[in-house]
Amino acid sequence: MPDNKTAEAAKDATILSAALSCGVYINSACGGEGVCGKCKVIVKSGQVIAPPESAITAGEKKRNIYLACLTTVHSDLEVEVPPESKLDFDNLTPQELELRLKGLYAKSEEVESVTAGAKEKFAHSPLTTKIYLKLPVPNLEDRLSDLERLCRAIRRIKDIPNIHTGLVNVKQLGELLRDSDWKVTVTLGLKDGVTELINIEPGDTAGKNYGLAFDIGTTTITGQLIDLSHEKILGTRATYNKQAVFGSDVISRIIFSQEENGLEKLHNTVTDTINQMSRELIEEHKVDLNDVTSILCTGNTTMIHLLLGVDPKFIRREPYVPTLNFVPVSRASEAGIIINPHGLLYCVPGVASYVGGDTTSGVLSSGIYRDKEISVLIDIGTNGEIALGNEDFLLAAAASAGPAFEGSGVSCGMRSSRGAIEKVKINAKTMEVSYQTIGRARPRGICGSGYIDIIAALLRVKLIDKNGKFSLTAAKRLREIDSGKAFVLVEKKDADSASDIVISEADIENLKRAKAAIYSATSCLIRHMNLDFGAIKKIFIAGGFGTCLDVESAITIGLLPDVERKKIIFVGNSALAGARQMILSSRAANTADEIARKITYFELSVDAHYMDEYVAALFFPHTDLNKFPSIIN
Amino acid sequence: MPDNKTAEAAKDATILSAALSCGVYINSACGGEGVCGKCKVIVKSGQVIAPPESAITAGEKKRNIYLACLTTVHSDLEVEVPPESKLDFDNLTPQELELRLKGLYAKSEEVESVTAGAKEKFAHSPLTTKIYLKLPVPNLEDRLSDLERLCRAIRRIKDIPNIHTGLVNVKQLGELLRDSDWKVTVTLGLKDGVTELINIEPGDTAGKNYGLAFDIGTTTITGQLIDLSHEKILGTRATYNKQAVFGSDVISRIIFSQEENGLEKLHNTVTDTINQMSRELIEEHKVDLNDVTSILCTGNTTMIHLLLGVDPKFIRREPYVPTLNFVPVSRASEAGIIINPHGLLYCVPGVASYVGGDTTSGVLSSGIYRDKEISVLIDIGTNGEIALGNEDFLLAAAASAGPAFEGSGVSCGMRSSRGAIEKVKINAKTMEVSYQTIGRARPRGICGSGYIDIIAALLRVKLIDKNGKFSLTAAKRLREIDSGKAFVLVEKKDADSASDIVISEADIENLKRAKAAIYSATSCLIRHMNLDFGAIKKIFIAGGFGTCLDVESAITIGLLPDVERKKIIFVGNSALAGARQMILSSRAANTADEIARKITYFELSVDAHYMDEYVAALFFPHTDLNKFPSIIN
Repeated sequence: MPDNKTAEAAKDATILSAALSCGVYINSACGGEGVCGKCKVIVKSGQVIAPPESAITAGEKKRNIYLACLTTVHSDLEVEVPPESKLDFDNLTPQELELRLKGLYAKSEEVESVTAGAKEKFAHSPLTTKIYLKLPVPNLEDRLSDLERLCRAIRRIKDIPNIHTGLVNVKQLGELLRDSDWKVTVTLGLKDGVTELINIEPGDTAGKNYGLAFDIGTTTITGQLIDLSHEKILGTRATYNKQAVFGSDVISRIIFSQEENGLEKLHNTVTDTINQMSRELIEEHKVDLNDVTSILCTGNTTMIHLLLGVDPKFIRREPYVPTLNFVPVSRASEAGIIINPHGLLYCVPGVASYVGGDTTSGVLSSGIYRDKEISVLIDIGTNGEIALGNEDFLLAAAASAGPAFEGSGVSCGMRSSRGAIEKVKINAKTMEVSYQTIGRARPRGICGSGYIDIIAALLRVKLIDKNGKFSLTAAKRLREIDSGKAFVLVEKKDADSASDIVISEADIENLKRAKAAIYSATSCLIRHMNLDFGAIKKIFIAGGFGTCLDVESAITIGLLPDVERKKIIFVGNSALAGARQMILSSRAANTADEIARKITYFELSVDAHYMDEYVAALFFPHTDLNKFPSIIN
Repeated sequence: MPDNKTAEAAKDATILSAALSCGVYINSACGGEGVCGKCKVIVKSGQVIAPPESAITAGEKKRNIYLACLTTVHSDLEVEVPPESKLDFDNLTPQELELRLKGLYAKSEEVESVTAGAKEKFAHSPLTTKIYLKLPVPNLEDRLSDLERLCRAIRRIKDIPNIHTGLVNVKQLGELLRDSDWKVTVTLGLKDGVTELINIEPGDTAGKNYGLAFDIGTTTITGQLIDLSHEKILGTRATYNKQAVFGSDVISRIIFSQEENGLEKLHNTVTDTINQMSRELIEEHKVDLNDVTSILCTGNTTMIHLLLGVDPKFIRREPYVPTLNFVPVSRASEAGIIINPHGLLYCVPGVASYVGGDTTSGVLSSGIYRDKEISVLIDIGTNGEIALGNEDFLLAAAASAGPAFEGSGVSCGMRSSRGAIEKVKINAKTMEVSYQTIGRARPRGICGSGYIDIIAALLRVKLIDKNGKFSLTAAKRLREIDSGKAFVLVEKKDADSASDIVISEADIENLKRAKAAIYSATSCLIRHMNLDFGAIKKIFIAGGFGTCLDVESAITIGLLPDVERKKIIFVGNSALAGARQMILSSRAANTADEIARKITYFELSVDAHYMDEYVAALFFPHTDLNKFPSIIN
């Protein structure tokens, strides 16, 4: 319930795995460790066995609420999954999608433009190209073999000394050339510096060459179908990463990957999602699957390891070394991705275990690597990634903000999907709360940007102090919950939730730590270069999160520095914008390679100043109020 | 019979295919076209349907002799395969093998040396190399990813800017490196100018790196297992090419390839043979299959097409263009060859449809491409290949000698296998014939070199004239057979044959045309360069055929020119010697590439002088006796 689905489960199977087996996705942010308390379900009838569990209160126990991840089946059961425990994997609505894709560089009318979200237009030279060739017919004076004849014709157009190809393209080449009257279209793919002849088709099909650009986020997967011949985005799809059922952040997924078949499940989940999205895209745009000749993926280092089926376990073991940052170009089919059977899979190179290809492509599309002046790119998330630099240097760090911004580890947190509270206002006189939800749906919980807005609102009307503790004036709406005081935003009766939607002091503490991690990481990088925020020309905020973020709120709580507001630029999905540039231009791809090599990874945990900076940031907005002159206290 | 084997056959199946299905190999030189008359069998009981067939005489018909290729099964049958119709696919005896491998450059004691049969020793740098690496253990200061760490270590030893690899080598790399304490052996393979990391093994296995060199001849397949690390030949195997059941020469095999599943059958036959030979070799020398990292094949253009499963049909259609001369390096497994699953398959580049990689490797190992003086390399066979040149130029032609030298198209011809008459003497006074057979077995027929010896002997005692017609003095041993007069060498009672072993005037005519083709092709090439035989420093005779050839006999009949005898050098299997050089040295492989590009293919059929030269050579030894001063007539 409420989906009326039935699953057969072995005795001792968890409710979580039984639900998964019939396609009911239950939130499991910690990956089934019994820690996050996000997978609460109500057992309506039947016998279960459950360990004593701190995440379940005595009151919940009475109402037959259990953690799905730890509770095992011992008879036929009827189980209800309350809305706040459900993972909703529907595609995003067009409105949500648009929100996620647009940044200041990509105004809504530009979403269809390939340069949207990217600062530079690189020369058009797709990683996989089609060329139409009319070959001279062999005769007794010109008896070059079929394959060499083909390569000669290619070389007359492109200066490629070394053309690789596989036997599969050669076996029926003689017949193909003669049947097509020596008029064929070849598909060439760049493969780590070498050109591979990946396909030969009869006739002129040079106009039909398509590629896929994918940003594989821990939470969201966004993909675009691109007309490589005509430099056009044909369509976009975004969906939640279904790997979330195995854990909401990269660490819990890495842990899950070590379970039996865990890596395989994670790998199959992401490739299935990619394949379904690309199938929808090509069907909608009437593109033949065989004309899709390449796919380029960007994402954090863990996501790329899982995409390739590479064991990610060493990413989280000291000294945090990934198996690979630069991914060899392979056939897409080798990774289980369905495009043309000879089509190629490219991955954007990463920098380190926690600074991935998404940062590289963000640096590319934001253009910070080519400016004289210094800019910073901040991708706010569980694994915040910050890049600083200009044409002379690039420095990047990972800020472990924890999952609060993703709506995890906070009492009513949820991902920024339908029903999440994203904006909040509190009337300074009446203390009346008004809010707005994603999709204008009944409220189910609070997303990361919602939390920032709430804390800023609470600060503005002084319902909390600079430590994040509730003041006496808040008393009217305060409840005492298990973890302490909580401020009620929406009462249960007005919500799509089993309980009131609240923000607790513990939640505020979590978010304070998260914002301090991002702020101090950024300030550490800047300080490391002997600079201050005043010397920074632009602060690019990347990711879907940024799109929803209210700048004033973010500065009010001290997540972002108190700089001229026009310096703060939301670049939306800069990772996808970079991926698009690369699939359309080998020069952009080469530039991304250079960027990834050029970025110096800066390890915050070993920096002498980081702890001081972090502790100083553990206030709203900061210990040093001189750093936030525009925030009136 | 006589093997006592039983096959189930569909009604209308040919006796040939029924025999093949139970592993009885019947000679079928023409590929089952009913032309060559080599597949005669005796139907002892049962009903067959056979078309009227000119290859069967009235006498044979009475004895229930039929052509197996045209005769179909219509009831249970008992069929006897006479010895002369059987194809014997046993491995060659050690003596036969030695005979085939030795040339003047490879004296018997040198057979085990890698330089045997090759003029130059190239620097040791195998196409697939193993390198043992001790990697620095990562720490917080050195956090390069596993794959880049591996590549960095390789680059510290070898200057390789661009190292390719596949996902399959990366998936468990993290665990492999740590489990092996960061001590691993990598296998690197050269792939068309790019270095591929093809394997990573724990520990130090650099000393265990093996390769296979194969010469895939139309008639014989010879293979060697080579210790690539220590530059040593471990063992050699030779066997008949079982494709012979589908036709004895390349043309009949190309025709067969166009039948249903024909190409697949031919392809599987050669790969099965290679796999069996390599299995025997590695078992004998206790080598692990996984340590066999490469195989290099040489052979004529058709054999290489069939090996790769590439449709060869355009080789025999004007303008005679093969699908490929330069074969892309592929995984051996792609061609069905079983070595290390990531091991590479190399093929020696060819020049044209009828001048293949065997010529290229022969030119390499004979060294004619690097001498100041001009030499010629002659590979005598159905498709004779002749290369002429020095360090400045290389010219090659194909001489279509017909199958007489392979023992086909002549009445008692057979391949040079057990029981073939290979040497003949005729006492000038008594006209008594003495002969010697391969393996000292009871005579079954006559091989190519045997025919040359017989004709030379007949010429010396003047039993035939310079036209090849029998003189009156031969009358005592002459029989009248279907095709005219025939000279009896061995009577049926002394032979392992259903009839007398004879040489007929028609046979002599066939051999005259064959020797004229080779001689005139050679003289045409030389004349084309405005030279004569006197200007040629050395005449290299290549191939197994050359090994058995008696020089005096060959000059006596006018197959070879009448030059100083020491100029004529038998180089044995020069193709295999070249293949061995290449698999052991990338410099040799590059040289072979340059040779193949440098060789100018000379088309005899369009040369104005060729017909005159050919007609002039249609005498024993030649029209112009001044060209053969040492031959007393």
